[in-house]
Amino acid sequence: MEPQPDCDIEIRVRYAEVDQMGYLHHSRYWIYFEMGRTELLRRSGMTYRQCEAAGIRLVVVKAEIRYLAPAQYDDVVVLTTRLKKMSQVKMVHAYELRRKSDDVVLARAETTLGCVGVEGGVIPIPDSLHRA
Amino acid sequence: MEPQPDCDIEIRVRYAEVDQMGYLHHSRYWIYFEMGRTELLRRSGMTYRQCEAAGIRLVVVKAEIRYLAPAQYDDVVVLTTRLKKMSQVKMVHAYELRRKSDDVVLARAETTLGCVGVEGGVIPIPDSLHRA
Amino acid sequence: MEPQPDCDIEIRVRYAEVDQMGYLHHSRYWIYFEMGRTELLRRSGMTYRQCEAAGIRLVVVKAEIRYLAPAQYDDVVVLTTRLKKMSQVKMVHAYELRRKSDDVVLARAETTLGCVGVEGGVIPIPDSLHRA
Amino acid sequence: MEPQPDCDIEIRVRYAEVDQMGYLHHSRYWIYFEMGRTELLRRSGMTYRQCEAAGIRLVVVKAEIRYLAPAQYDDVVVLTTRLKKMSQVKMVHAYELRRKSDDVVLARAETTLGCVGVEGGVIPIPDSLHRA
Repeated sequence: MEPQPDCDIEIRVRYAEVDQMGYLHHSRYWIYFEMGRTELLRRSGMTYRQCEAAGIRLVVVKAEIRYLAPAQYDDVVVLTTRLKKMSQVKMVHAYELRRKSDDVVLARAETTLGCVGVEGGVIPIPDSLHRA
Repeated sequence: MEPQPDCDIEIRVRYAEVDQMGYLHHSRYWIYFEMGRTELLRRSGMTYRQCEAAGIRLVVVKAEIRYLAPAQYDDVVVLTTRLKKMSQVKMVHAYELRRKSDDVVLARAETTLGCVGVEGGVIPIPDSLHRA
Repeated sequence: MEPQPDCDIEIRVRYAEVDQMGYLHHSRYWIYFEMGRTELLRRSGMTYRQCEAAGIRLVVVKAEIRYLAPAQYDDVVVLTTRLKKMSQVKMVHAYELRRKSDDVVLARAETTLGCVGVEGGVIPIPDSLHRA
Repeated sequence: MEPQPDCDIEIRVRYAEVDQMGYLHHSRYWIYFEMGRTELLRRSGMTYRQCEAAGIRLVVVKAEIRYLAPAQYDDVVVLTTRLKKMSQVKMVHAYELRRKSDDVVLARAETTLGCVGVEGGVIPIPDSLHRA
């Protein structure tokens, strides 16, 4: 695998994503990371929508995260997504989320994805994805 | 259509459903109402899961709501769901959400559902649903 | 009240917002409309974050919607938000959501907001908001 | 710390929680785990609502999960929550989520919580929580 460029996206924290402490709820970070993977793939010339249409479905099999500082409603955050490893059967992505205004790191995370065929079983990651 | 019994369910408000005002976010009520429809249908001897497996998909085409008082984290609320009208092509449900501790009405709402076939177009509501 | 300009924002439908029919779940539209209100207010020179910091909290007291066509994962949708009416005690917003690729109208909706003071009771809408 | 009993709760997977693969979205598991912590604490004679009212706010600082099998709409799942470790400054919970119908394990996870004071800084976990 050749070195992959990082993918940065900006997200504005929505009111409905914040809890009564005034913090972005810890479960929503995973939705942001999924957006990061979507955009990383798009920049490689493919879309995840095309993947699913072709019967390729990627599921998260493992994930871990460290929350370092809270994000608040209306904050603009910058998410950096990087494809860290890719084998025949899994993809590992790394994420860093920073607050845009002061570049403070809010969270660092990693997910492992596996590929699932139309019948639900684990399958090797298709060549089309490897090339992308 | 014979008169239908109401269906009451209890829901405890989750931390992740509450916004920074400390109130159940107004968008989550619709998720509760969908749970109410699911349980109303189950009590009639059918499940919505079976409906979808049979190619029957119900979509919300119209909705309206009045929010009367807020619900808070950890409140237990009681949702009453009632099938108000059913025609060849649509179903109208009415909802009332009350706080369990003092029976205060929190919201009243109504939704209109239409039936969508496997190709996406509107179809008449199948007999199996009418019977249920 | 002088005529207010409309506010258009673009939103890309997230994977986590779509249900198993492949449609943007009907509850998520309200989250988009809240984003529309946030941006409409920002363009008037104020932010809702400042409002809350000043003890002004706006709550939805009434809402209605017509769903006309579904949005799907990765669709870009355009939301037009307009302040339709503003009285001493309430604000009415109108929304139109269109698919960007073909300009098809997906939904039309309206919300009524009231103002709540720090103790929870309904209060008149402050002058600062009227001016904005 | 004396050995703590496990806390089991049942949750029915909601329609709005499932993605277009028909699976409980991976971000929603954390909402279930939060419900598990809420109930575990309640059984110890305290509520998290009381904690927050007393100025004690618990935030997730670290989390990890393995997804082993998918849950689907309308599945009833059983969540076992256990307090694994508790120190002066953090609490570690372990979670196991199983499908009720066949007892298949769907996920195993762990979270680390820290305590945050009213000004936002990390504080030792109060005695009241240790006793509970």
